[in-house]
Amino acid sequence: MGRRYDTVSFLTDYGTVDEFVGVVKSVIRDIAAHVTVIDLTHEVPPFDIRAGSLTLARSISYVPSGVVLAVVDPAVGTDRRCVAIEVADGEGVLVGPDNGLLAPAVAMAGGAGRCVVLTNTDYHLEAPGGTFAGRDIFGPVAAHLCNGVDLYDLGDPIDADLLLPGVIPLPREENGVLVAEVLWVDRFGNCQLNVGPDEVEGYGDMLRITVGETTGGGVTRVARRSDSFFALGTGALGLVTDSYGMLALALDRRSAAEELQIAAHDQVVLERVGDENGSASQAGSPVSSPVNLRITR
Amino acid sequence: MGRRYDTVSFLTDYGTVDEFVGVVKSVIRDIAAHVTVIDLTHEVPPFDIRAGSLTLARSISYVPSGVVLAVVDPAVGTDRRCVAIEVADGEGVLVGPDNGLLAPAVAMAGGAGRCVVLTNTDYHLEAPGGTFAGRDIFGPVAAHLCNGVDLYDLGDPIDADLLLPGVIPLPREENGVLVAEVLWVDRFGNCQLNVGPDEVEGYGDMLRITVGETTGGGVTRVARRSDSFFALGTGALGLVTDSYGMLALALDRRSAAEELQIAAHDQVVLERVGDENGSASQAGSPVSSPVNLRITR
Amino acid sequence: MGRRYDTVSFLTDYGTVDEFVGVVKSVIRDIAAHVTVIDLTHEVPPFDIRAGSLTLARSISYVPSGVVLAVVDPAVGTDRRCVAIEVADGEGVLVGPDNGLLAPAVAMAGGAGRCVVLTNTDYHLEAPGGTFAGRDIFGPVAAHLCNGVDLYDLGDPIDADLLLPGVIPLPREENGVLVAEVLWVDRFGNCQLNVGPDEVEGYGDMLRITVGETTGGGVTRVARRSDSFFALGTGALGLVTDSYGMLALALDRRSAAEELQIAAHDQVVLERVGDENGSASQAGSPVSSPVNLRITR
Repeated sequence: MGRRYDTVSFLTDYGTVDEFVGVVKSVIRDIAAHVTVIDLTHEVPPFDIRAGSLTLARSISYVPSGVVLAVVDPAVGTDRRCVAIEVADGEGVLVGPDNGLLAPAVAMAGGAGRCVVLTNTDYHLEAPGGTFAGRDIFGPVAAHLCNGVDLYDLGDPIDADLLLPGVIPLPREENGVLVAEVLWVDRFGNCQLNVGPDEVEGYGDMLRITVGETTGGGVTRVARRSDSFFALGTGALGLVTDSYGMLALALDRRSAAEELQIAAHDQVVLERVGDENGSASQAGSPVSSPVNLRITR
Repeated sequence: MGRRYDTVSFLTDYGTVDEFVGVVKSVIRDIAAHVTVIDLTHEVPPFDIRAGSLTLARSISYVPSGVVLAVVDPAVGTDRRCVAIEVADGEGVLVGPDNGLLAPAVAMAGGAGRCVVLTNTDYHLEAPGGTFAGRDIFGPVAAHLCNGVDLYDLGDPIDADLLLPGVIPLPREENGVLVAEVLWVDRFGNCQLNVGPDEVEGYGDMLRITVGETTGGGVTRVARRSDSFFALGTGALGLVTDSYGMLALALDRRSAAEELQIAAHDQVVLERVGDENGSASQAGSPVSSPVNLRITR
Repeated sequence: MGRRYDTVSFLTDYGTVDEFVGVVKSVIRDIAAHVTVIDLTHEVPPFDIRAGSLTLARSISYVPSGVVLAVVDPAVGTDRRCVAIEVADGEGVLVGPDNGLLAPAVAMAGGAGRCVVLTNTDYHLEAPGGTFAGRDIFGPVAAHLCNGVDLYDLGDPIDADLLLPGVIPLPREENGVLVAEVLWVDRFGNCQLNVGPDEVEGYGDMLRITVGETTGGGVTRVARRSDSFFALGTGALGLVTDSYGMLALALDRRSAAEELQIAAHDQVVLERVGDENGSASQAGSPVSSPVNLRITR
């Protein structure tokens, strides 16, 4: 037997209007009654693997020791691999489809330890149809892991290098301007960029922001660095260091996303104020970088 | 004392914007602190007893042993009956209004055992107004059942035949075409029909689908049978055997409901391809069948 | 050590689309694994302190003994105070920002006992940015309270009179008409007024209702007093004594808010039928009254 766990952290694109989430929890409860399930969110946009993977990456350093069950799975019912990945010397196990969803969180947690493809159907539920792997494969496997079933009993070991990597867009500095991207728009309309405070060191307290270049009519605004939304004052655009230590375009008690008409994936160019040479319009697309699951020490 | 339970599976049309669900859970926690509540869903459309009953019926074979608390209750505050119904020799007890909401789930669970009308106010909460039976009647009763209060202590026994039956629409074969109905549109836009794979045996792998006949401008499309959404390929309409073993109109990573402009209750006619005689336009309405709560062995 | 608790009742304006709620629960679980968290709601409209405070006030008499964690916090990251307030001789502790959010619930619970400002950072989480106090301050403090940390270990005592009061609008009788206000529109469209049944004693069973006066085109309807929605019959406007013992404008299975085009904060004037003198158009604005946190015995 392996280590036992008593928490499952749970993220999906199932929504909570249908009974999907409740049924998966019912299945877990039936197999491992001692487990507490914590919902991270079930409102990942349908099929949006990138959004799910970023949400999981933001959450991973806060989830308790235990199993992380994550399902955004457009290829459900095909022969895409179902996997379980140990992290942090077995402090945690991530369970889900092998489509990049888990990769950024695995990397954040220090890289993959032991990995298996979930081929042992003894730990799955028999089902009248193959389109609900959360109920029939991932949920039961998460529960059996909590009961102390060893990872290697769940299926065939697989080298972490063979797992599908996640893709996180990296900002790119070019001619003194920083070409960035919106990673996430939260409920309050704050737009998290793929840029940390270190990357704009020397840009000063006021930055010129250009959005919408890629779609034609770009909008340029000046944004002030701030540590709180409130301190911006009414109507002033800010670049707030958010709760994850990234820069976010924000307004005080209003939605920056609505104000600027931007969404996740949109390009944002950051420049020094008064720096007219490195113009936003010369900037190309941001570059992407694969996230490696292998532990790098 | 009766049997004790430690799980309440909970379904309502309360939504989660107001505090209704949280208050019912608070009441349960206060009476029976050992109980874990599993939310099936609280987003049943307001007052939609049929949608609630179908959701409950889909879930019932997965919910753990315990109490099922279900409230979609447009007649709250009137003299409509509040009931508790044992199923599976006391493995489960369903608690809710006697308006058909519980009936299909009871039937799925093998039929009703002992039933009571919840007339014993000792197990209810006193309330300043009579419009929140989830908080004041059903929730407390569910908690007391978990504490081991016997069903017959909760009120007056009633014969299961006197409970209001649920109504599930049955498909109807006529002139070689199958007149079906959309039971449920899920978050992803998949449209579950009241038709299982057995009922279209001999229809072949490609079926002609006609929707919208009842409203005039009917749309006819060809749908392919499939075991996964992904295998359909982009844009091709499918008849996928869903996770409950029913046929669902589906598209790969897109909403079939939007594409076909259909919703729950809408009629769908299925025909063999090349079968021009049994035309959809001759088909009438689907028939309905009452669900009997009495155990049938 | 202080008293231990095993329930946290949790209310925010975080929504459940982002991972905020899940991350706070993860933090609590990490610090105090024995705790059950009950979600009251997380769908308080963003930044709407009044709506949050009313929801909390409606819930407070139902929440189990334990910690109440409430976060609607537009000034997060500034020097606004974070507080914990004991109520009911330590049966409960409310934790949240000092902006009026907690005040009505504290008053409903009998007034404030010991209060502290959460200045002891030993019980907070270190964070890369200061905009998520639920995760970094309020959640950890709630968990430590559950573990038995004494209130006074969490920071500096503060006199309850120095806390920001909440503001609850009071109805005003003028020339025999009652000028009231919509406190809350629930999922079903019922509009709770700031008026109890006692305040319309002598107004009879049918009352004249005028809405929209303040915006110009006022609408006048007659509403019947009722104890249930269903008893109103189709289409008839009612004044139902709701589950909190307040009067609510309601329709049977339809939204009164939609029908009357009203929302929270809107003025509603109630008159006796046939009472043409005290006309609604002469009525001014409703008055507000601060809620004192001091226990009044």
